[in-house]
Amino acid sequence: MSNNELRQLQTRVDDVNLKILKLINERGKLIQDIEQAKGTQEIHQYDPISDRKMLDNIHDYNNGPFKKSTIEHIFKEIFKAGLELNKNDHRKALLV
Amino acid sequence: MSNNELRQLQTRVDDVNLKILKLINERGKLIQDIEQAKGTQEIHQYDPISDRKMLDNIHDYNNGPFKKSTIEHIFKEIFKAGLELNKNDHRKALLV
Repeated sequence: MSNNELRQLQTRVDDVNLKILKLINERGKLIQDIEQAKGTQEIHQYDPISDRKMLDNIHDYNNGPFKKSTIEHIFKEIFKAGLELNKNDHRKALLV
Repeated sequence: MSNNELRQLQTRVDDVNLKILKLINERGKLIQDIEQAKGTQEIHQYDPISDRKMLDNIHDYNNGPFKKSTIEHIFKEIFKAGLELNKNDHRKALLV
Protein backbone atom coordinates (compact mmCIF):
# COMPACT_ATOMS: atom_id res chain seq x y z
CA MET A 1 0.00 0.00 0.00
CA SER A 2 1.29 3.45 -0.90
CA ASN A 3 1.66 6.38 1.48
CA ASN A 4 -1.14 8.04 -0.46
CA GLU A 5 -3.51 5.16 0.25
CA LEU A 6 -2.47 5.24 3.89
CA ARG A 7 -3.28 8.96 4.04
CA GLN A 8 -6.66 8.28 2.47
CA LEU A 9 -7.43 5.70 5.18
CA GLN A 10 -6.39 8.19 7.87
CA THR A 11 -8.65 10.85 6.31
CA ARG A 12 -11.52 8.36 6.49
CA VAL A 13 -10.78 7.81 10.20
CA ASP A 14 -10.91 11.60 10.75
CA ASP A 15 -14.25 11.68 8.94
CA VAL A 16 -15.65 8.83 11.06
CA ASN A 17 -14.38 10.57 14.23
CA LEU A 18 -16.43 13.67 13.40
CA LYS A 19 -19.52 11.60 12.61
CA ILE A 20 -19.18 9.85 15.99
CA LEU A 21 -18.71 13.26 17.69
CA LYS A 22 -21.88 14.58 16.04
CA LEU A 23 -23.90 11.53 17.12
CA ILE A 24 -22.57 11.60 20.71
CA ASN A 25 -23.65 15.24 20.98
CA GLU A 26 -27.00 14.48 19.29
CA ARG A 27 -27.47 11.74 21.89
CA GLY A 28 -26.60 14.24 24.64
CA LYS A 29 -29.29 16.64 23.44
CA LEU A 30 -31.86 13.83 23.35
CA ILE A 31 -30.92 12.82 26.91
CA GLN A 32 -31.41 16.45 27.99
CA ASP A 33 -34.85 16.50 26.30
CA ILE A 34 -35.79 13.22 27.99
CA GLU A 35 -34.67 14.43 31.41
CA GLN A 36 -36.56 17.68 30.93
CA ALA A 37 -39.68 15.71 29.98
CA LYS A 38 -39.28 13.41 32.98
CA GLY A 39 -38.85 16.44 35.21
CA THR A 40 -42.39 17.55 34.47
CA GLN A 41 -43.76 14.11 35.28
CA GLU A 42 -43.66 11.88 38.32
CA ILE A 43 -41.13 9.56 36.71
CA HIS A 44 -38.06 8.19 38.45
CA GLN A 45 -35.07 10.16 37.09
CA TYR A 46 -32.55 7.44 36.36
CA ASP A 47 -33.59 4.07 34.96
CA PRO A 48 -30.85 1.39 34.96
CA ILE A 49 -33.24 -1.14 33.38
CA SER A 50 -33.54 1.15 30.37
CA ASP A 51 -29.73 1.35 30.15
CA ARG A 52 -29.47 -2.45 30.31
CA LYS A 53 -32.07 -2.78 27.53
CA MET A 54 -30.14 -0.26 25.41
CA LEU A 55 -26.91 -2.23 25.90
CA ASP A 56 -28.63 -5.53 25.03
CA ASN A 57 -30.06 -3.94 21.88
CA ILE A 58 -26.60 -2.61 20.94
CA HIS A 59 -25.06 -6.08 21.40
CA ASP A 60 -27.73 -7.62 19.16
CA TYR A 61 -26.53 -5.39 16.33
CA ASN A 62 -22.79 -5.71 16.95
CA ASN A 63 -21.03 -7.35 14.01
CA GLY A 64 -17.47 -6.51 15.10
CA PRO A 65 -14.56 -6.15 14.81
CA PHE A 66 -14.98 -4.96 18.39
CA LYS A 67 -16.04 -7.58 20.88
CA LYS A 68 -19.04 -7.25 23.18
CA SER A 69 -17.02 -6.24 26.27
CA THR A 70 -15.24 -3.44 24.38
CA ILE A 71 -18.48 -2.07 22.93
CA GLU A 72 -20.13 -2.26 26.36
CA HIS A 73 -17.21 -0.40 27.94
CA ILE A 74 -17.35 2.44 25.38
CA PHE A 75 -21.13 2.77 25.61
CA LYS A 76 -21.05 2.85 29.40
CA GLU A 77 -18.72 5.87 29.12
CA ILE A 78 -21.22 7.48 26.71
CA PHE A 79 -24.11 6.70 29.10
CA LYS A 80 -22.13 8.13 32.04
CA ALA A 81 -21.52 11.34 30.09
CA GLY A 82 -25.29 11.54 29.57
CA LEU A 83 -25.90 11.22 33.32
CA GLU A 84 -23.47 14.07 33.95
CA LEU A 85 -25.56 16.36 31.73
CA ASN A 86 -28.54 15.83 34.00
CA LYS A 87 -28.36 18.59 36.58
CA ASN A 88 -31.58 17.47 38.27
CA ASP A 89 -30.19 14.12 39.30
CA HIS A 90 -27.30 14.04 41.75
CA ARG A 91 -26.68 10.34 41.23
CA LYS A 92 -23.90 10.11 38.67
CA ALA A 93 -23.03 6.43 38.99
CA LEU A 94 -24.11 4.03 36.31
CA LEU A 95 -26.01 1.05 37.69
CA VAL A 96 -25.55 -1.35 34.75
CA MET B 1 -44.83 16.12 27.37
CA SER B 2 -46.85 12.95 26.94
CA ASN B 3 -45.60 9.42 27.54
CA ASN B 4 -45.87 8.91 23.80
CA GLU B 5 -43.48 11.79 23.09
CA LEU B 6 -41.12 10.43 25.75
CA ARG B 7 -41.16 7.02 24.06
CA GLN B 8 -40.40 8.69 20.73
CA LEU B 9 -37.36 10.41 22.23
CA GLN B 10 -36.17 7.09 23.70
CA THR B 11 -36.60 5.43 20.29
CA ARG B 12 -34.43 8.18 18.80
CA VAL B 13 -31.75 7.46 21.42
CA ASP B 14 -31.84 3.76 20.46
CA ASP B 15 -31.46 4.76 16.83
CA VAL B 16 -28.48 7.04 17.60
CA ASN B 17 -26.89 4.25 19.71
CA LEU B 18 -26.93 1.91 16.72
CA LYS B 19 -25.50 4.59 14.42
CA ILE B 20 -22.66 5.16 16.93
CA LEU B 21 -22.10 1.38 17.14
CA LYS B 22 -21.86 1.14 13.35
CA LEU B 23 -19.36 4.00 13.17
CA ILE B 24 -17.22 2.65 16.03
CA ASN B 25 -16.96 -0.68 14.22
CA GLU B 26 -16.34 1.08 10.88
CA ARG B 27 -13.51 2.96 12.61
CA GLY B 28 -12.18 -0.36 13.97
CA LYS B 29 -12.03 -1.83 10.45
CA LEU B 30 -10.20 1.26 9.17
CA ILE B 31 -7.68 0.98 12.03
CA GLN B 32 -7.12 -2.68 11.09
CA ASP B 33 -6.55 -1.65 7.45
CA ILE B 34 -4.11 1.07 8.51
CA GLU B 35 -2.17 -1.27 10.78
CA GLN B 36 -2.01 -3.88 8.03
CA ALA B 37 -0.72 -1.23 5.61
CA LYS B 38 1.86 -0.05 8.13
CA GLY B 39 2.94 -3.64 8.69
CA THR B 40 4.16 -3.87 5.12
CA GLN B 41 6.14 -0.65 5.46
CA GLU B 42 8.91 0.52 7.76
CA ILE B 43 6.54 2.76 9.69
CA HIS B 44 6.44 3.03 13.46
CA GLN B 45 3.37 1.11 14.60
CA TYR B 46 1.77 3.48 17.08
CA ASP B 47 1.76 7.23 16.56
CA PRO B 48 0.66 9.31 19.59
CA ILE B 49 1.13 12.57 17.61
CA SER B 50 -1.51 11.35 15.15
CA ASP B 51 -3.86 10.61 18.09
CA ARG B 52 -3.27 14.11 19.50
CA LYS B 53 -4.02 15.67 16.09
CA MET B 54 -7.22 13.62 15.84
CA LEU B 55 -8.32 14.80 19.29
CA ASP B 56 -7.53 18.44 18.44
CA ASN B 57 -9.53 18.13 15.23
CA ILE B 58 -12.45 16.60 17.15
CA HIS B 59 -12.39 19.46 19.66
CA ASP B 60 -12.46 22.03 16.84
CA TYR B 61 -15.80 20.58 15.73
CA ASN B 62 -17.35 20.10 19.17
CA ASN B 63 -20.46 22.24 19.59
CA GLY B 64 -21.70 20.54 22.78
CA PRO B 65 -23.66 19.83 24.88
CA PHE B 66 -20.70 17.70 25.98
CA LYS B 67 -17.66 19.59 27.17
CA LYS B 68 -14.17 19.07 25.80
CA SER B 69 -12.96 16.87 28.68
CA THR B 70 -15.95 14.51 28.33
CA ILE B 71 -15.51 14.19 24.57
CA GLU B 72 -11.78 13.60 25.01
CA HIS B 73 -12.43 10.91 27.63
CA ILE B 74 -14.89 9.03 25.37
CA PHE B 75 -12.63 9.25 22.31
CA LYS B 76 -9.62 8.03 24.27
CA GLU B 77 -11.64 4.91 25.12
CA ILE B 78 -12.45 4.51 21.40
CA PHE B 79 -8.76 4.99 20.49
CA LYS B 80 -7.72 2.44 23.15
CA ALA B 81 -10.16 -0.07 21.69
CA GLY B 82 -8.50 0.49 18.32
CA LEU B 83 -5.06 -0.25 19.82
CA GLU B 84 -6.39 -3.50 21.25
CA LEU B 85 -7.37 -4.63 17.76
CA ASN B 86 -3.78 -4.36 16.63
CA LYS B 87 -2.25 -7.75 17.25
CA ASN B 88 1.12 -6.72 15.83
CA ASP B 89 1.72 -4.09 18.46
CA HIS B 90 2.10 -5.22 22.05
CA ARG B 91 1.93 -1.69 23.41
CA LYS B 92 -1.65 -1.16 24.47
CA ALA B 93 -1.32 2.07 26.42
CA LEU B 94 -2.50 5.32 24.92
CA LEU B 95 0.16 8.01 24.97
CA VAL B 96 -2.09 11.07 24.60
